Amino acid sequence: MFESLHRRAGKKGLPPGTVSYFGREQSDPVVLEAIRVEPEGVRRTRLASADECAAYVDAPGLTWINVDGLHDPDAISRLGAIFGLHPLVLEDITHTGQRPKLDELDGSLFVVLKMLRYDEVERVIADEQVSFVVLRSVLLTFQEKAAGDVFGEVRKRLMSGAGRLAKGGPDYLMYALIDAVVDNYFVVLERMGEDIEEVEEALLLTPTPGELTTIHGLRREALFLRRFIWPLREVLARLEKGGSPLINDATVFYLRDLYDHTIQVMDTVETFRDMLSGMLELYLSNVSLKLNETMKVLTMISTIFIPLSFLASLYGMNFRHMPELETRYGYFVLLGVMACSVAGMVLFFRRKGWLSKQQ
Amino acid sequence: MFESLHRRAGKKGLPPGTVSYFGREQSDPVVLEAIRVEPEGVRRTRLASADECAAYVDAPGLTWINVDGLHDPDAISRLGAIFGLHPLVLEDITHTGQRPKLDELDGSLFVVLKMLRYDEVERVIADEQVSFVVLRSVLLTFQEKAAGDVFGEVRKRLMSGAGRLAKGGPDYLMYALIDAVVDNYFVVLERMGEDIEEVEEALLLTPTPGELTTIHGLRREALFLRRFIWPLREVLARLEKGGSPLINDATVFYLRDLYDHTIQVMDTVETFRDMLSGMLELYLSNVSLKLNETMKVLTMISTIFIPLSFLASLYGMNFRHMPELETRYGYFVLLGVMACSVAGMVLFFRRKGWLSKQQ
Amino acid sequence: MFESLHRRAGKKGLPPGTVSYFGREQSDPVVLEAIRVEPEGVRRTRLASADECAAYVDAPGLTWINVDGLHDPDAISRLGAIFGLHPLVLEDITHTGQRPKLDELDGSLFVVLKMLRYDEVERVIADEQVSFVVLRSVLLTFQEKAAGDVFGEVRKRLMSGAGRLAKGGPDYLMYALIDAVVDNYFVVLERMGEDIEEVEEALLLTPTPGELTTIHGLRREALFLRRFIWPLREVLARLEKGGSPLINDATVFYLRDLYDHTIQVMDTVETFRDMLSGMLELYLSNVSLKLNETMKVLTMISTIFIPLSFLASLYGMNFRHMPELETRYGYFVLLGVMACSVAGMVLFFRRKGWLSKQQ
Amino acid sequence: MFESLHRRAGKKGLPPGTVSYFGREQSDPVVLEAIRVEPEGVRRTRLASADECAAYVDAPGLTWINVDGLHDPDAISRLGAIFGLHPLVLEDITHTGQRPKLDELDGSLFVVLKMLRYDEVERVIADEQVSFVVLRSVLLTFQEKAAGDVFGEVRKRLMSGAGRLAKGGPDYLMYALIDAVVDNYFVVLERMGEDIEEVEEALLLTPTPGELTTIHGLRREALFLRRFIWPLREVLARLEKGGSPLINDATVFYLRDLYDHTIQVMDTVETFRDMLSGMLELYLSNVSLKLNETMKVLTMISTIFIPLSFLASLYGMNFRHMPELETRYGYFVLLGVMACSVAGMVLFFRRKGWLSKQQ
Amino acid sequence: MFESLHRRAGKKGLPPGTVSYFGREQSDPVVLEAIRVEPEGVRRTRLASADECAAYVDAPGLTWINVDGLHDPDAISRLGAIFGLHPLVLEDITHTGQRPKLDELDGSLFVVLKMLRYDEVERVIADEQVSFVVLRSVLLTFQEKAAGDVFGEVRKRLMSGAGRLAKGGPDYLMYALIDAVVDNYFVVLERMGEDIEEVEEALLLTPTPGELTTIHGLRREALFLRRFIWPLREVLARLEKGGSPLINDATVFYLRDLYDHTIQVMDTVETFRDMLSGMLELYLSNVSLKLNETMKVLTMISTIFIPLSFLASLYGMNFRHMPELETRYGYFVLLGVMACSVAGMVLFFRRKGWLSKQQ
Repeated sequence: MFESLHRRAGKKGLPPGTVSYFGREQSDPVVLEAIRVEPEGVRRTRLASADECAAYVDAPGLTWINVDGLHDPDAISRLGAIFGLHPLVLEDITHTGQRPKLDELDGSLFVVLKMLRYDEVERVIADEQVSFVVLRSVLLTFQEKAAGDVFGEVRKRLMSGAGRLAKGGPDYLMYALIDAVVDNYFVVLERMGEDIEEVEEALLLTPTPGELTTIHGLRREALFLRRFIWPLREVLARLEKGGSPLINDATVFYLRDLYDHTIQVMDTVETFRDMLSGMLELYLSNVSLKLNETMKVLTMISTIFIPLSFLASLYGMNFRHMPELETRYGYFVLLGVMACSVAGMVLFFRRKGWLSKQQ
Repeated sequence: MFESLHRRAGKKGLPPGTVSYFGREQSDPVVLEAIRVEPEGVRRTRLASADECAAYVDAPGLTWINVDGLHDPDAISRLGAIFGLHPLVLEDITHTGQRPKLDELDGSLFVVLKMLRYDEVERVIADEQVSFVVLRSVLLTFQEKAAGDVFGEVRKRLMSGAGRLAKGGPDYLMYALIDAVVDNYFVVLERMGEDIEEVEEALLLTPTPGELTTIHGLRREALFLRRFIWPLREVLARLEKGGSPLINDATVFYLRDLYDHTIQVMDTVETFRDMLSGMLELYLSNVSLKLNETMKVLTMISTIFIPLSFLASLYGMNFRHMPELETRYGYFVLLGVMACSVAGMVLFFRRKGWLSKQQ
Repeated sequence: MFESLHRRAGKKGLPPGTVSYFGREQSDPVVLEAIRVEPEGVRRTRLASADECAAYVDAPGLTWINVDGLHDPDAISRLGAIFGLHPLVLEDITHTGQRPKLDELDGSLFVVLKMLRYDEVERVIADEQVSFVVLRSVLLTFQEKAAGDVFGEVRKRLMSGAGRLAKGGPDYLMYALIDAVVDNYFVVLERMGEDIEEVEEALLLTPTPGELTTIHGLRREALFLRRFIWPLREVLARLEKGGSPLINDATVFYLRDLYDHTIQVMDTVETFRDMLSGMLELYLSNVSLKLNETMKVLTMISTIFIPLSFLASLYGMNFRHMPELETRYGYFVLLGVMACSVAGMVLFFRRKGWLSKQQ
Repeated sequence: MFESLHRRAGKKGLPPGTVSYFGREQSDPVVLEAIRVEPEGVRRTRLASADECAAYVDAPGLTWINVDGLHDPDAISRLGAIFGLHPLVLEDITHTGQRPKLDELDGSLFVVLKMLRYDEVERVIADEQVSFVVLRSVLLTFQEKAAGDVFGEVRKRLMSGAGRLAKGGPDYLMYALIDAVVDNYFVVLERMGEDIEEVEEALLLTPTPGELTTIHGLRREALFLRRFIWPLREVLARLEKGGSPLINDATVFYLRDLYDHTIQVMDTVETFRDMLSGMLELYLSNVSLKLNETMKVLTMISTIFIPLSFLASLYGMNFRHMPELETRYGYFVLLGVMACSVAGMVLFFRRKGWLSKQQ
Repeated sequence: MFESLHRRAGKKGLPPGTVSYFGREQSDPVVLEAIRVEPEGVRRTRLASADECAAYVDAPGLTWINVDGLHDPDAISRLGAIFGLHPLVLEDITHTGQRPKLDELDGSLFVVLKMLRYDEVERVIADEQVSFVVLRSVLLTFQEKAAGDVFGEVRKRLMSGAGRLAKGGPDYLMYALIDAVVDNYFVVLERMGEDIEEVEEALLLTPTPGELTTIHGLRREALFLRRFIWPLREVLARLEKGGSPLINDATVFYLRDLYDHTIQVMDTVETFRDMLSGMLELYLSNVSLKLNETMKVLTMISTIFIPLSFLASLYGMNFRHMPELETRYGYFVLLGVMACSVAGMVLFFRRKGWLSKQQ
């Protein structure tokens, strides 16, 4: 969880605006890819180097340049130079411990956020940073090199050349991509929701220490999600209201819808947090109740038998003069006394309500 | 509870504005019904298909078209085309995991909220999504196909042709319908309130584990209600203040009143939450007290009898030379010592205040 | 506590603006009374019916019409017609489950709030709804029929014909009445404060389960007060700032003072809540400490005597060959061993700090 | 703590603006004192009666009139008449249960706040109400008659006739006096901070019930401070921003500095609250841990010796036919069995980790 | 932690604007150093006295005067006179218990904040106050005399004469220095994060009391950081938005970036707090569970053996007439009864689920 903190601390002492990578180690090369939407059709090209992008700077129509991998500072600096990006924007793109944010500067719009994926193998939520730069006719996206992205469907729709995607500008394309990211949040939440319901059902049966650890883990995950989603909500609110010239009026309504979805995500995370707190309390209450019940069993057994044992020990003493021992029915009288004592205790416990199954 | 999350996650990968249904499975057909208020009278018609609505688009007077069932995307798309609704509005209508919200766009007002009903049989709160679209002279409502709605009284008043309802526009009709929805919240809250009072009374008698589960369940219900009512409050605040041309000035005062009711609902839910937390604390405190009392019984019994038993065992030993055993009154002296020890213990417990019924 | 909820739920299905009474059952008739302040003197009249009020509608000077009892919908509807009140205002007046609120409409100002009274007999806080309607020269007040009101002093001052009351308009009269209501809140708070201090003192001596119930009861009362006072604060803030033409400039300063008092009430309630939470925590901590102490007693007794008893039992066995039993000083050696064991245990407990009175 | 509430409740039924005293009983007479700053020097006069103040109403230069004691309503009413103060202001001055507040009215500025003093003898925080009225050239201050005030240093600086104090107006003088009050808050906080650190150190050694009571007491004190400081913060924010004609522009920067100090006081109080909560949790956790440790000792002793005792009792029975008793080495075999049982238990406890000092 | 409070309290009674030092005692002399950036190069000079600064007041280009040590009031007063600083600013510079704040006055910008350093030897977080005064062409910085500062890298870059630093004004230089301070916060957070993860891992294995103390210590540290970082966030927000003429437009974007970093720091601290709370709850839950488990062991042992011991004691009695003792197989029958009793208990425990490893 603190990996990003570690990376951030590594940056200490560097001048602001330094483009350098402190993220996960990467061996694969950075992949650059451009998708051009032109009247004559949609073309997807893999670019050999950042320099090839220069051709797209003022090209009409829509160009989407996707950079897969942040570990080549030179390529990113080159791209920054070509598209005239501010050094701090480039720094933010390469530092993967970023909090979701929106910056508008020098005729470009910069959005950074987190893509989430539920890793089915390790059963953890994995995050990956994605940055968007909206220019007049170009959308730049930067992602960490990872197993894949959640943009497959959007890419397919764009390549088909039909629909609003191909006709819209880079702002609508960005919307569609963020929408895909947020849609994936719901998938992650669904998985968490399933885990929560599973634990809750187990709680109502017999609580085990395992559930405690699971609840703790889920709470940490909720905390983790919250850190990414709260600021995203703010980013979208500003995008929708900000009146940037780079955001088309027609896109605003879509962004408002997206904003509503983010609130829904946030709402769900908060509900999860409330539920997990409630479950922890229920769990602890159950443990307390169980302890109480255990102690009642112990107390009842002890209270019944300890006095009896004392009496038995008493008449097991070897004093020479113990008149009771000599009597003919002493033993039976004592057994009677013991039976009465047991009966008395049972009555006492019943009056206290300890004998009912439930307290 | 997470059903809606599940449905929402299923939508992943679809382009924005897709009209598709992921809600509860439905076998009954979608029912369309129109109520026309004309100078010559009020007429209620069951429509065979969405196309018949085209006649109402610009019809003077007031038309209420109610769609019962969201599982026919074609019919809803058709309605959207006839009345010129935005694709995202249609999407929101059909996706039943919606958070209450208000959108104003292209000369129409879109409100979505949740109808609640206390299911007397299963003793749970059931929710159903209702969407309202206010146009110049038409009100469209969309509900999930379910056992019925809470609009019966409004429908009756409207059909009677008298009163403000028949004279008002679609905005007042929407107000009246939302008012009916909110009125029903009070019924649901009343039921919850009864449950809470029942549990509280039980708590003051003998607390059992059952109450713990009930309190937990009620807290979840309160959490659940809160998710629907908080955003509704916001929707009504915006409706009342927004100054939409579709909302008549005369209706605004009614909306303000409705807003007050929603705040009252919200207040009550928050009070429930506070009370339930307080009850849980009371419950746990009671368990702690009981445990303490149990342990005092055990400690008193043990403290009195364990030393006595030891003494008895001591003189039950078979050593050849145990002078005390040979004395004439050894046994009686020992009994005296034991009596003194008991008396000492009783004094000690009294000083500690353990013998008073309450501590 | 949920009585008002019950009444509110009963209203379900009625059209908005219906004047009907769902409050406590009443057998006494509704009492209408008018106090007229005219240059020639102050006159107090008991009115036989609502119709008599018509004479006061445009009468110069100041008229205060007080309606004692809300259970006669016809009389209230009649009054509404005479003074031109909005149907929703009439509805709010008769529905006693109202949240304090302020409405301004059609040249009238409508305020509803709760009068509180500490019932010395049943030792509970009783609430009663009061509504105020400020018109140009008339103040209408509506209260539930109950044991009395808190307006006695104001009435006396008004009847005396001297002072600011008789010279001011209906706005100042309303201020004076609300001031009397808020003054009474302090009396109620004082009673609660006394109860809290009583419980707190008891807590520092020996805590008993009774205190737990009292704390719980006081917390509920604080919750209850809070529901009435928070919205009242808002009402007064709006009154003071709203700039209504019905509120005289000279009255505004008085309203601000009243607002300060309400904040002070609110502050006190919040402090009560914090104190009660703190007391509950103190109580539970004390129970925990007591439990710990009890268990230490049990553990010390058991730890000392259980091994001794074992040794005694050991030499109470009847094996034929037990060499120790035959030795001359075996018994005394064993007693020595036992004494050493006791001394060892005592040392162990002292090292653990269990023997100090406090731990 | 609720003394002020008590006084406030006593005011019930009085007309607004009544000047009457419900504070602590006082026997000393009210002392009036005027300090005049004139070009020819600074003069300090003790006034025989309120009427003497009339001479200062429009005197040029700066006059500070200090009223020490609020229990003479006539004198205060007289002062009010002379300086033209609003009746509600006079009422607020004499009612000592006031919440810090600021009122601006009729060319005067009214500030009321609380002076705090740590009473070294009784080790409690004592509060005293101070009111300030800023007029064009006069500053009126009203304090409860008490052991003294915190204005000594300011008075000395003013009397010296040098520095900003003598040159500034009543606004700067008020600033200097409030600054002295707030400086004294730091002294009070320092004392509380020392107490908190003392308790915390004790907690890390051996916690005793005494600490619980101390923590509870400190929490109440923090609650108490908070009630006075929160509203003061608001008062200063409004003073600094309000743009009153009575506040000189040059003074505003000083007020802002004072505001910063109040925030620092508030911050410290909040930190105290957080720390005290944390300490309470630490305390309770320690108690829980100790209980656990105690129970482990008990369980170990019981688990080891109870089975042994049983075995010993078994062979202490007097059945005629018990073959084991007759064997030659029965006793030694049994001792061996017992030793094995003990060894087994010790192994079991070690596996559970109960034998390590810490768990 | 309350050292600063102590210093603050010492200031009581001094007139506002007094330049005096109440911080840590210092023996080293105050060091003044100036760095001049001129077209012909960058020059670093150590100044013998404050008077030498007079030459820089209106010098073109950029001058950075750093004062290392606050314990020479005369030097600081002298500097204040030379650069025309307000007395309250000088007071704030020398009082080291300052809350981070921003003041703009008389053509100068004053910022005070806290430099943090993780002391590797004592393993605590050390704070040091730094003040910035931005003038037209001069930046003044004041720091407490301590082991060093975090400005080394910035100084080196400035001395190199290249880059934005040398070309920017005092505003950009201040930004760069604050950026260095905030970068160092990340280093401190990283250390805390490591400690937190270490404790958390330990918790999941076997919790010991040591962890409790560590968690408590970390919570205090988080509280401590929060007090410095919350107000810094506010300072930066105002710097970025305030539109001061001393802040260059080009610097604003850098300040916004810095603001984002501070929010990230704040976010992390809040997350730490949430995590530590969660860990404390987990810890306590574990202790409760362990207690429950311990008690189950005790109860099982007691429940099995106490009745058996009673039976054994019973037949160890010395009554003359105990028929069972005389029977031939009495002993074996009793052994059988005991075996049955054990089996019954085991069944009972299994039914209660006590025998499973986990409950």
